[in-house]
Amino acid sequence: MKLIIGNKNYSSWSLRPWLAARASGQVFEEIRIPLFTEGSRERILQHSPSGKVPCLIDHGVAVWDSLAVCEYLAEKAPGLWPADSAARAVARAISAEMHSSFQDLRQAMPMNIRKDYTGKGHTPAVDANIARIEAIWNDCRARFGTKANAGGPYLFGAFSIADAMYGPICFRFKTYGVQPAGAAGEYLAAMLAHPAMQEWEAAARAESESIPAEDLYG
Amino acid sequence: MKLIIGNKNYSSWSLRPWLAARASGQVFEEIRIPLFTEGSRERILQHSPSGKVPCLIDHGVAVWDSLAVCEYLAEKAPGLWPADSAARAVARAISAEMHSSFQDLRQAMPMNIRKDYTGKGHTPAVDANIARIEAIWNDCRARFGTKANAGGPYLFGAFSIADAMYGPICFRFKTYGVQPAGAAGEYLAAMLAHPAMQEWEAAARAESESIPAEDLYG
Repeated sequence: MKLIIGNKNYSSWSLRPWLAARASGQVFEEIRIPLFTEGSRERILQHSPSGKVPCLIDHGVAVWDSLAVCEYLAEKAPGLWPADSAARAVARAISAEMHSSFQDLRQAMPMNIRKDYTGKGHTPAVDANIARIEAIWNDCRARFGTKANAGGPYLFGAFSIADAMYGPICFRFKTYGVQPAGAAGEYLAAMLAHPAMQEWEAAARAESESIPAEDLYG
Repeated sequence: MKLIIGNKNYSSWSLRPWLAARASGQVFEEIRIPLFTEGSRERILQHSPSGKVPCLIDHGVAVWDSLAVCEYLAEKAPGLWPADSAARAVARAISAEMHSSFQDLRQAMPMNIRKDYTGKGHTPAVDANIARIEAIWNDCRARFGTKANAGGPYLFGAFSIADAMYGPICFRFKTYGVQPAGAAGEYLAAMLAHPAMQEWEAAARAESESIPAEDLYG
């Protein structure tokens, strides 16, 4: 199993399935293709029909798009979604909402793990995105996170794909100094302390490429 | 089971799970909330935590976002995803790509079933989106659609969630006069002839609301 990803410092979409694979203990070869460099699109197209990262190759079949890769991994490691049907439905709902929404926040606060941009990027639309994310985190922690049959500090107790989908948001919140109160803040701290998140962060800090801000914000 | 949707003429995201539910024969109550009218957001929020349609309510649990609702329906009606693992992985990949991409086409060619806007909406970026969609359709038909164990005129032979996700694109192609050649064109014709697509289209034509273009294009 090979996972094609972009720069760890910048590629928020790559982080999602990487986290899901790492957190579930699945063994995979990582192929990192730095983005925004000469020939990078051609290199990605050799693996990924959509021309985008991430892409998983397993038994000769290419599976692209962060959410589809996570679903594929979940079929191989069933613990990646909550076992309870209602919890799993909500986990998929917030994962899909992350996948299709929050454009204002993504645009104004691109993932850039090495930087400290505390206070930057806020607009009313971005703040509305942040408020919605905090509401999701608080709601999931209250309804599903603390149940005895789940346990753990994550959105549905044990680490799930929902956490993998919100992993990039956690790094963005750290970079831009967004500090939620209460349960959402405790969840953010738990995510930033997760071994897989820390492994990714260390690798991002060790990368040498520097992408101009205008490309990230474009 | 209740499905909250917007106007059938305009709400492309609502069409997706509605098609999946209808095509799989699942019984549901439909609650239509016309968009862009006074109080519509408040009415939606009574059902859907994200404030958006579509949203499914089942046994008191709200499941929102088109793709998550489709996954929920697939757990109740397993035939909604291809049975073969590789085909299912690709079906999820193209569904997720539809869910997160093609912004230029969505912006320039909003779903408006009652209209004939042949020739309108084209830009180089929109045409690149159209070319990518045609490539996806041709690839799926060639690799998965015609296999003896699947059959049927849809992307993976039998009707699947992948078809439900591309249903709104089929109506857009009809409205804006986009006519793919070859296998993609045959697929488009099969989709527009599907009983559930025809039922939705007839209901869209019977709706009385008219949303100003600037809201649709916004």
